[in-house]
Parts: sequence; C-alpha cells; structure tokens
Amino acid sequence: MSDPNILLRALSADGILRLTLNDVARRNALSEAMLAQLGAAFAEAGAARAVRVIVLAANGPAFCAGHDLKELTAGRKAPDRGRAYFAQVMAQCSGVMQGIVNCPKPVIAEVTGVATAAGCQLVASCDLAIAAESARFSTPGVHIGLFCSTPMVALSRNVTNKHAMEMLLTGDMIPAPRAADMGLVNSAVPEADLTCTVMEMARKIASKSSMTLATGKRAYYAQRQMPLADAYDYASHVMVENMLAHDAEEGIDAFIAKRAAQWQDK
Amino acid sequence: MSDPNILLRALSADGILRLTLNDVARRNALSEAMLAQLGAAFAEAGAARAVRVIVLAANGPAFCAGHDLKELTAGRKAPDRGRAYFAQVMAQCSGVMQGIVNCPKPVIAEVTGVATAAGCQLVASCDLAIAAESARFSTPGVHIGLFCSTPMVALSRNVTNKHAMEMLLTGDMIPAPRAADMGLVNSAVPEADLTCTVMEMARKIASKSSMTLATGKRAYYAQRQMPLADAYDYASHVMVENMLAHDAEEGIDAFIAKRAAQWQDK
Amino acid sequence: MSDPNILLRALSADGILRLTLNDVARRNALSEAMLAQLGAAFAEAGAARAVRVIVLAANGPAFCAGHDLKELTAGRKAPDRGRAYFAQVMAQCSGVMQGIVNCPKPVIAEVTGVATAAGCQLVASCDLAIAAESARFSTPGVHIGLFCSTPMVALSRNVTNKHAMEMLLTGDMIPAPRAADMGLVNSAVPEADLTCTVMEMARKIASKSSMTLATGKRAYYAQRQMPLADAYDYASHVMVENMLAHDAEEGIDAFIAKRAAQWQDK
Repeated sequence: MSDPNILLRALSADGILRLTLNDVARRNALSEAMLAQLGAAFAEAGAARAVRVIVLAANGPAFCAGHDLKELTAGRKAPDRGRAYFAQVMAQCSGVMQGIVNCPKPVIAEVTGVATAAGCQLVASCDLAIAAESARFSTPGVHIGLFCSTPMVALSRNVTNKHAMEMLLTGDMIPAPRAADMGLVNSAVPEADLTCTVMEMARKIASKSSMTLATGKRAYYAQRQMPLADAYDYASHVMVENMLAHDAEEGIDAFIAKRAAQWQDK
Repeated sequence: MSDPNILLRALSADGILRLTLNDVARRNALSEAMLAQLGAAFAEAGAARAVRVIVLAANGPAFCAGHDLKELTAGRKAPDRGRAYFAQVMAQCSGVMQGIVNCPKPVIAEVTGVATAAGCQLVASCDLAIAAESARFSTPGVHIGLFCSTPMVALSRNVTNKHAMEMLLTGDMIPAPRAADMGLVNSAVPEADLTCTVMEMARKIASKSSMTLATGKRAYYAQRQMPLADAYDYASHVMVENMLAHDAEEGIDAFIAKRAAQWQDK
Repeated sequence: MSDPNILLRALSADGILRLTLNDVARRNALSEAMLAQLGAAFAEAGAARAVRVIVLAANGPAFCAGHDLKELTAGRKAPDRGRAYFAQVMAQCSGVMQGIVNCPKPVIAEVTGVATAAGCQLVASCDLAIAAESARFSTPGVHIGLFCSTPMVALSRNVTNKHAMEMLLTGDMIPAPRAADMGLVNSAVPEADLTCTVMEMARKIASKSSMTLATGKRAYYAQRQMPLADAYDYASHVMVENMLAHDAEEGIDAFIAKRAAQWQDK
C-alpha cells in the first residue's frame, strides 16, 4: 500500500482544503500512487459539503515533475511491451486532470518550483493559478523522445498556439512572469507573498454560495466548447435555473436591501 | 411606454451612429425597456444604408450595470415564481448580444465608468472596444448568488480561461489597463482622449466599403467556429464572391492605378 | 516556366532547411508561381529525411505582400469574370497554408519587413515565428474592398477576437512588439539578432527525434479542435504509441542513465 503522506490534506474552518503534494524525494511525480491519491482527493472534496475551495500546493523544489519515468519504464517488461499498462496510466492521469475540471469546487494552483510535463498540465487544469515569481514551467517531453501530448491538451486551452508550440517544440523552461503574460497562470508574485495571495483569493471565493460556484464552473467549461448560439441557449437556461434557486433569491434580496446574504449552500 | 431617451441616437454625416446609454439613474441597467431599445437600434442600424459604423457609449458613472435586478425580482410574484419571465428576459438579452455580433456594421464600444455583469458582456460582444484608463470591468454575479453565466459566453470568447475564471469566481473589478492586457478591450486611453480615439477609429472604418465590411464581419465569426479545413473552404468561397463584387474590382483597380477608390456600397 | 530563384532553398548539415522568399521586385507576392514553389517545397521537405526543421525567411523590404493583385486582376478577362480562376488560386493558397500546418517538420517564420494580407497569414500559419523589432504586420484587404477572409482563418487562430478584428477592420500596420504581445509572433528581437535567434531555436528543435516532433505536431493541431474529453482520449492514445516507439524508449533510458540519447529518427 502506498504512503498516504505523499499527498497532505488540511481543511480550514472556512472551507479551504489545501492539498499539498509531498513526495519530495520523487519530485512529486505523478506515480500511480500519487494519481490515485489525487483522484480520490478531488472526488471526495467535490462531494464534501465542508469543502468550498481547493488549493493545490507542493513541498520541495519541484511543484510536480510529471509522470514517474522509472515506474513507466518498468512497465515495458510486460509481454505487450507495456501497451496495456501505458494505456491504463494515461487514462488514469487524464481522469485526474478532467476530475479537476469537472470538480464542482473551484481549484487554485499555488505554484512553487518547477512544474514540468504532466506537472505543468496539472497547473493548466486548475481553474486558477498563482505562481511564485521564481516558479518555472515546461513541457520537456521532446527532450526524451516522448512529446507532451496529453499535457498539451490542457496547455493549449490556456495559451495561444504559438506560445504552446514554443514550449512543446523547444522544451524550454518558462519563468513565471512570462507564464503570467501567456495566460498559463493568473499572476506571478514574490515567493514570500504567495501563500497569502492564494489564501486571500481562496477565502474570497469561499465566501460565495457553493451552489452558485458549482453551477457557474460547470456551465463555464460546457459553454466554452459550444458554438455561440448554442452557448447562449444553454447559458440562458442555466441563468433561469440559477435565478430560481434559493441563494440567488437571497443574494439579490440582500443586495437590494444592502445587507449581507445568508447562503443556504454555505 | 418607456422613455425613448434612455438610448440616445446621433448619426454623423460620415455614417457613424453613436448610441449612448442614457438611463443614468438606473446605471444604464439592461431593463426590458433598454434591451428593447438596444435590440431595435442595432436591427435598424444594421439595415440602414446611411449607417456605416456604430459606436456604443454611455452617460453617467456606469457604462452599464447589467440586468435590472429590481425588475427581475418583481417577476418572482408570478405563479411560476418567475420562470417564464426570466426565460423571456434572458432570451431577449442574449438576442441583443447576438444582434451585435450578427449586425453587418462594425460596432465599437467606447467605455467609461464601470461595465459589470451583462454590461461587461455588452463590451465583450462588440467587435472592438476602447476604454478610458479609469474604466473598470467585472462579472460580479457570484456576489449575489447568480453566477454570470450568460456574460461569460461573451467574456470567454475574448480572454483566456484563467482570466475569465478569475473575473467570474472572484467578481473582482478589473482596471482598464489589465482588461487591455487580457484582450477584453483593444486599448485603454486617457479619458480625455477617449472619444477622439474612438471616433478616429470609427471614421477610418467608415471610409471602407460597407459591402466589404459586412462580408468580412459575417465571415469572421462564422469561420471562427469551424475546424481549420472547413474554415478555409468557407473563407475561400467568401473571397471568390468578394473578388467578383463591384467594390473589390474598383478597390483593386484603384490600388494598382494609385488613385482613390469610389465605393458603390458607400 | 517560372523562375526557380523566387524561392531559395538551403539545407544545413544539421537538418535546417532555410526557404527564402526571393521575388523582391514583386514584394514576394504569393503569385501562382510562388505558391507552386512554396507548396512543393513544404511537401518535399515534409518527406525528406534530411530535413528536420524548416525556417521561412525573405529577402527585400517586404516579407510577403500577399496575393499578386495584377495577376488576379488579369483573371477577370475570362468569360466567367474570373470566378473559376479565383477559386483555383484561393484553393491553391489555402492548400499551401494548410500544407505548413500539416507538414510533419516544425516551421519557424523569420520575419523582416512587412507581412501583409496572405503574407501575414503565412506567418500565422507557421508553428513558430520570430520577428525583427522593425517588422510590421497587417491585413489591409479592407482598403481595397477585398476583406482578408482567408488570412483571418490563420490570424484568428493566433490572436484574440478583438485584436483580430482591429487588424481586419482598420487594416492598420501592427509593429512587431505589439504582434508579440498579441501572440501573432513568439517574440520580437533586434534585427541584427534575428537570424541568430531563429537559428538557435531551429538547432535546438533539430536536435530532437523527428518521429517525436512529427507525432507531437500532428497531435497538437488535431486535439486543439476537439472537445476536452475527446482530446484527452485521442492524446492518451498518441502517448501510448509514442511510448512504444524506439526513440521514447531510448530517450527515457538515456534520461534515467544521465547519458545523451541516440535517436533512430535523427
């Protein structure tokens, strides 16, 4: 059984769950064990009423180094040269990434150190990301003959084609300020201010109605993939249902009366 | 009957229609009356030969505050708790926004003050937008339990996912210079220069062939939603028809002869 | 027969093919002859084992001025007023542009001077682009009654809607530093450093496995057009096949052993 301490969990009184990648010796690689723990953590947090916002942070010099290459390589010994095993790991990893996108709770990456390959994908998959100015990002699979094809799914939904191709074809490290310019992270802040900045944003979001956040996050990614007219039909329907929910009625009444709202889904 | 002065219209001799939101007391909210006037104004301007470019401006400290929450709330008294009414308002509002996108005349937002919720959507729906440096933008529905789900359709077609999510999940005000960096507006200029800058851009565009502008604007949004090969097939067809139209023949002849073109569709 | 010197070809020992537009008198216009040579050059380079990376550069003050308007205009003399001819030229040009996207070798634009209309599209169609700080970009078809409808297919897949519409509706020249901010080019560098910068990037990419580059480039553009879940299914499959290829096994083994990889597809 894998060490449960490779992913630390801490839930604050105000509903902020901090998940901290803690497999420092393996540079927080997305081993099968880590993927299993991450997948379970997001699934549980998504369903837990007490969790309102999730912060994904990391211990050690690497935020996350991507797949565990030694573990993957060991899979080559199978009679099929690893085909079934690789397919299973890729499906597991893609499931974790989409589990973040589909999680009803907002997810903020708090990035220190280097986030590479599937580690960069992890950042790109979060709804929001704040990086230390010293953080760096790359999709370096091209250096080892294995193009970062799954990482680019998330990367290319955050940055423009030329920026994505630059990272993918060169494998170069991108400093956090340039990552912010590109749109891969929301901002880059001095490392000393990072946790404060992230937690302030997390608390702000955690003070909102969870129903409203879940409704909006789901609708955001759904409408993003639709043609304009379909997106409007869908989003209009979402707005009507949202208007009829308790927390919108309460929120609007409170706004008009200039008082604080009392969320049901708090 | 609603006050026709909530939307001012002024057409210049060179074909620039200025529409000015003028319901200052209600912060230019998108009331049913305002939506009706905006919808009609864009439909008429789209069909009017004399109108070549449309500028959307506003009087008062708010460019536009989004939906009229008091009016919406009054709708809750219906036996269906407002469901049919909300659906009608959302359809009306989405129709106005798509009416801007589908209007054959280019539309430029001239943004002063705060543009929030569906007011931010209004800016995002215009083809171009220039903001005063003092202007600010937000999608603050999350504060009142009503996620900005229809505004995000337009917002997310202007800015990257992380920027859109930051605005949507926090509801924070974004200053105009950052909105320009994000791509929500084309540029932010000193407030004293705003109208001059916008009108100079409008005059430049108004000097072109209306047929060409209408052809290009329609084709732009159509091709944007297609896979690459389909987009090229479609755009190639558009180019051939454009080449065969009078104004392209005249424009190219004039260019080769180094003389000014005389547009038929002027 | 057309002058073969309108497109110069030079292949370095390390696999970098420099294609240089050299029809200076015609501002490197995309005449039928130029399109034929470009199409053939990319097709041949895509198939040539010795070519690892392609650089597209230009001689003269114009990188590329777009279609050859005199040649197009001559087509109007046909009984159908040029319809069949225009359709053929647009199909040829769109084929060249998609030939760059579909070429298995990475393509870097090295931009000096002005890149206008289909010349701007040429830059937008390359995987990467580095511009001299003095370079400029525009889609000026609107000036001559012929909207840049095919150029905008490539342009709008590089920059945001408002930036694309600004270029398309005004026809204004965009200086290279702003083009870099918009995402149309990766960076703008002093003209004296341009070729060095491009060749350094080209050599870096040329040192990778060609199989890996081809796999990744093809997968990039394919997945970019898919909904998220489909993109992950597809990219996961690509990763599994990539893992089973010689160069990934070698690359990962070399990485773990801290030695240099020996690519089969070098």
